[in-house]
Amino acid sequence: MSFDPSTLTFNEAGLIPVIAQDADDGAVLMMAWMSAEAVSRTLDSGRVTYWSRSRQSFWVKGETSGHVQELIDLRVDCDRDCLLAVVRQIGPACHTNRRSCFYTSVIGDAEVELMTPLS
Amino acid sequence: MSFDPSTLTFNEAGLIPVIAQDADDGAVLMMAWMSAEAVSRTLDSGRVTYWSRSRQSFWVKGETSGHVQELIDLRVDCDRDCLLAVVRQIGPACHTNRRSCFYTSVIGDAEVELMTPLS
Repeated sequence: MSFDPSTLTFNEAGLIPVIAQDADDGAVLMMAWMSAEAVSRTLDSGRVTYWSRSRQSFWVKGETSGHVQELIDLRVDCDRDCLLAVVRQIGPACHTNRRSCFYTSVIGDAEVELMTPLS
Repeated sequence: MSFDPSTLTFNEAGLIPVIAQDADDGAVLMMAWMSAEAVSRTLDSGRVTYWSRSRQSFWVKGETSGHVQELIDLRVDCDRDCLLAVVRQIGPACHTNRRSCFYTSVIGDAEVELMTPLS
């Protein structure tokens, strides 16, 4: 079956959530959104390209920071309404300079920081 | 800092996306949604509880199938608009009886099935 991004299920804003996972150790790095065109650009370029909801523009991850994501594998879920991008991440994935955006853990009633920013 | 689910950022439907990751090997199993009350129920019970958008009701994962998710760790992302649930998954996570919902890979121009249903 050949792949056509328009067969994915997008939300009312025309976007699909994308989970980025580190190809080397399986760490979940971040979650962001893609339009159908962003999916195509990601597949064509091998550079993970999201749609920035705040800037309303394409967002080639790492274009300004250098913290690019090289696409290793793109997976579609059973409902075709979520993607998993397995990536090789250069530098930290999070804009806070932490390796992953998921650096806060809820333990008991408290929030605990698991990672500090990379120096 | 104590944890209050109402401090999370929910979408216009009052929901937040949740990534479920296997605690043992880091596999990304599925993505679903929680309301603030579903987050509280998950933390209180230790059983991952989503909000079913199709049924418009709480969805205690595995309640009918037995394929429950025991919560090991709940993490909040930097923007507080996505959660990562690290879980111990009993049986397959996917309703197709596959271990993960992300069983289809886009390779070149084709979709390739990576996993078959568990028997």
